[in-house]
Amino acid sequence: MAQVIDKLVVIGVGLIGGSFALALKRAHAVKRVAGIGRAGGSASLATALKLGVIDEIGAADGATLNDATLVMLAMPVGQMAATMHAIAPHLGDNTVVTDAGSTKLGVIAAARKELGRRLAQFVPAHPIAGAELSGPEAAKANLFDGRRVVIADLAETSPQAKSIVEAAWQACGAKTSRMSAESHDRVFAAVSHLPHLLAYALVHELCGRDNAEELFAFAASGFRDFTRIAGSDASMWRDIFLANRERLMAELDAYTAKLEHLRGLLATGDAAAIEQLLRQARDARNKWGREGAGSPPAA
Amino acid sequence: MAQVIDKLVVIGVGLIGGSFALALKRAHAVKRVAGIGRAGGSASLATALKLGVIDEIGAADGATLNDATLVMLAMPVGQMAATMHAIAPHLGDNTVVTDAGSTKLGVIAAARKELGRRLAQFVPAHPIAGAELSGPEAAKANLFDGRRVVIADLAETSPQAKSIVEAAWQACGAKTSRMSAESHDRVFAAVSHLPHLLAYALVHELCGRDNAEELFAFAASGFRDFTRIAGSDASMWRDIFLANRERLMAELDAYTAKLEHLRGLLATGDAAAIEQLLRQARDARNKWGREGAGSPPAA
Repeated sequence: MAQVIDKLVVIGVGLIGGSFALALKRAHAVKRVAGIGRAGGSASLATALKLGVIDEIGAADGATLNDATLVMLAMPVGQMAATMHAIAPHLGDNTVVTDAGSTKLGVIAAARKELGRRLAQFVPAHPIAGAELSGPEAAKANLFDGRRVVIADLAETSPQAKSIVEAAWQACGAKTSRMSAESHDRVFAAVSHLPHLLAYALVHELCGRDNAEELFAFAASGFRDFTRIAGSDASMWRDIFLANRERLMAELDAYTAKLEHLRGLLATGDAAAIEQLLRQARDARNKWGREGAGSPPAA
Repeated sequence: MAQVIDKLVVIGVGLIGGSFALALKRAHAVKRVAGIGRAGGSASLATALKLGVIDEIGAADGATLNDATLVMLAMPVGQMAATMHAIAPHLGDNTVVTDAGSTKLGVIAAARKELGRRLAQFVPAHPIAGAELSGPEAAKANLFDGRRVVIADLAETSPQAKSIVEAAWQACGAKTSRMSAESHDRVFAAVSHLPHLLAYALVHELCGRDNAEELFAFAASGFRDFTRIAGSDASMWRDIFLANRERLMAELDAYTAKLEHLRGLLATGDAAAIEQLLRQARDARNKWGREGAGSPPAA
């Protein structure tokens, strides 16, 4: 990966966008980083500049974008279309655009509509990393070390654009995998979006009750782990749920059917069937835990 | 707590029973510890003896039980009744019996039936600690440091028996709270039993699919935390779910209704209502996380 990015433009300099910049700087894989804020994000940009996450503050105009090697879209997926619309007229002929959104079909649909003749320069991607923290203060150079980044197949993307983005993520310490946007959104509906929805729902159910204080007072480490993801950013997850709602609702239906099944076993007191179900789940969970998360076949 | 237990008998020398013995030894609050195995648990007892968790191996007979100061029942709640039945004839007039079961109404019902005239010597309790690990090898003296132990009110329990058990738990480093068995089982159905059921259900739903390998391959840290409790012992949790099934099914129904509500918001694409719900849950979760779990008012 001797490839060096002359100019990176990060739009949305938060945890993911900021960490991408810092990781590339750590690898000496970028010469200059400009940051562009989301609407109302000028305080974040000043902080990012002060922390050395970015080298300059730019804007959605030709001066910032026309000579960019790579543009990273790192905002909630609900803001992707408007951002693409704003930057499309200013992109250079060789500027590669990528994103870090948690859903891919919606982002691709937006790119198809907004990027026009620049579609071949767009590489849809999803770094599988994150935390309940946000903002440029949370950014760190090692966020992606050993993590997976999915590069979603888009027939129109040029092979050169794809390999520039893959090389950049590998310079960040990540491992890249290619898969279709459909597969991506189906897989993440099941293993990420649904669990987030379930955790938010449990906390919301309990926090509205008259005895919420007593309930939380006795909640322990199991509850803490189970609900940790309910501490994630609300507007980001609203966007993800809506962008992937077809598949998320299908997962929710399958899950609700499973709960219904379990409820039936409880109602009839079927101890053997309950134990078998728990044992199968436990074995699968512990096997996965031992073999290590996030280790799909390499791209 | 200058009180010293002359002889402790632990029945079921696993994580909880073994840690109770080690914690009392650390505090010099016990002189002798005898262990009694559950059915088929002789290997565990030998290990416990070798590790110094217990000082001798006993049996459910007068020689072991009649001069015991305290008997700790530390087996899955489904085995409590049979164990009480076996030990009841051998208990001394001053022997206090306590348990560490995760549900209280069922254990009290068993005690009422099996302990007969010894009911005044029984103190139902629940240490809020645990892990996915089990067996005497997992036992450790500091397991209960700073943890909560609920002492469930039972009208028949003598005040002396109650204070012996409270003092023992305090010597173990735990903080004791008193509450009714009804309240206990209702609270823990919500904050512990339901989350366990939900985590088991999610893993079971996914591990049975044709693409389970792909799904697990892309599951990340959010999934890891959310499903950690699905790695818990299957027979122990089968017992808990069944012992508390009335309240657990009520919690499951309330939760399913919440999921139904959320599904409706997804179906209509109500972004504002989704964001509000997520934000309320996030705020409640983060407030709880900051203020610290397991800090109810002291007894």
